Amino acid sequence: MSPGKSRSQVRIALIQMACGVDPSENLKKALSRIKTAAARGARIVSLQELFKTRYFCQTKAQKNFGLAEKIPGPSTETLSKAARASRVVIVAPLFEKTPTGVYHNSAVVIDADGKVLGKYRKMHIPYDPWFYEKFYFAPGDLGFRVFKTRYARIAVFICWDQWFPEPARLAALKGAQIIFYPTAIGWKPENPREIKLYHEAWETVQRGHAIANGVFVAVANRVGLEGKLKFFGSSFVADPFGSVLCRASSSREEILIQDCDLGLIERTRREWPLFRDRRVDAYGGIASNA
Amino acid sequence: MSPGKSRSQVRIALIQMACGVDPSENLKKALSRIKTAAARGARIVSLQELFKTRYFCQTKAQKNFGLAEKIPGPSTETLSKAARASRVVIVAPLFEKTPTGVYHNSAVVIDADGKVLGKYRKMHIPYDPWFYEKFYFAPGDLGFRVFKTRYARIAVFICWDQWFPEPARLAALKGAQIIFYPTAIGWKPENPREIKLYHEAWETVQRGHAIANGVFVAVANRVGLEGKLKFFGSSFVADPFGSVLCRASSSREEILIQDCDLGLIERTRREWPLFRDRRVDAYGGIASNA
Repeated sequence: MSPGKSRSQVRIALIQMACGVDPSENLKKALSRIKTAAARGARIVSLQELFKTRYFCQTKAQKNFGLAEKIPGPSTETLSKAARASRVVIVAPLFEKTPTGVYHNSAVVIDADGKVLGKYRKMHIPYDPWFYEKFYFAPGDLGFRVFKTRYARIAVFICWDQWFPEPARLAALKGAQIIFYPTAIGWKPENPREIKLYHEAWETVQRGHAIANGVFVAVANRVGLEGKLKFFGSSFVADPFGSVLCRASSSREEILIQDCDLGLIERTRREWPLFRDRRVDAYGGIASNA
Repeated sequence: MSPGKSRSQVRIALIQMACGVDPSENLKKALSRIKTAAARGARIVSLQELFKTRYFCQTKAQKNFGLAEKIPGPSTETLSKAARASRVVIVAPLFEKTPTGVYHNSAVVIDADGKVLGKYRKMHIPYDPWFYEKFYFAPGDLGFRVFKTRYARIAVFICWDQWFPEPARLAALKGAQIIFYPTAIGWKPENPREIKLYHEAWETVQRGHAIANGVFVAVANRVGLEGKLKFFGSSFVADPFGSVLCRASSSREEILIQDCDLGLIERTRREWPLFRDRRVDAYGGIASNA
């Protein structure tokens, strides 16, 4: 397989990393892996959620706000140079600080010429005895966007978003071909049975989005033990009929490479013409909690 | 396990049948199996899509309209007596003829005292080189209802509906605890690889609905070879986290019995509070094809 052999064939890469305490080291590692992925022919590279830092949301500490930065800002600029140098699209999740002092769990999308196409701000914010995301992140205010990159029309949603049918549906209706879900999901390592159960549900619900919407789904998760949580990796790509095309290990760092035949989207939707039969007259109530 | 040992425990049954050419024989078989299921403690029994007839949609023939009947009508009355006699809730899919000469692929829901609670009319109608449903059935006009039966709040959707996230979401928001999907899905027996693929996607997308909405999903499919199609059975029940609790064979007639702990719905939603974090401000666009 050579990249770009057909217009509809796009090679993507998911960077599954373990993160250390030093953000600049994590960024350096990410840049090096982006370069490797590009050398292996990848045209779109996704990093995992909050790839520059440890998953700091396990504690509530004012000092953690110091990890945030503006978008665009220093990391965006560095990544932008990398995108241009390697001619790859980059999906880079960052802890974002806004001028008004509001913080978001965001992702910047950079095109293959280095141009910043825009950003996504995580819309669904979880909160659990084990992670305090609602303490750090205001819910996103930019909606569910689709980014027209050089190689594909993509949507980027982040972690908890992946459990909701609405973002995937809205993105597909707006023309997304690949939905990236940068993620940081893990659980207590002393509960392997629960990890297995959560992993299974997590993969299944996202495969369901692929099937219901006839899109590729590409999920980059982190690995490694941080505090009480073991992040379970298992990054994967599913095709528009929900088949898992590749899956990373649950504990090792990996660069997961996958060719996606975008032509499969139209072929799948012709065979399973779900969009044709939608009842746009009857879904109004979906917007409201009853 | 004894049925009704706790208020939240409900035993359900899915009748997976092969259908012959004589509707009265199919009805007789269904009644006998409902009785057996009730004797085994089932409190809600679901039949498969169009259980009274063969899957006649493989051909376009005016004479097939003669198979339709009113709801309520003769079959509803017979089933109503059976419900009262066995004290079971019955979900019975029927080919419905309306007074205006419009036909629907419907299901009647009968409470355990024999009272007709209402009907559902299939909202999403497929059409394929292999089955002409749009020829026979007008798209449903009753929306996505929830029926308050004696033993649980249930929604009933039919076959093709199961590929869409919206019905499941709307039903869950209206309080459904179990979503029944009576089905007639099959494929050409000379394509076992495709049957495997379709079965996998079919089960996955419905497990996804269970996970995203924290509800039980219960799917009764038919078996047997009819014309060009082998119906692949594999009726199943999934819990609110998408785990498959039981699954029938792909070729044998079966009465699939499963205890559903409705308390699991609230426990799952507390652990995975997806509804809490929905962005009701941001889903408006879901109603429209872009």
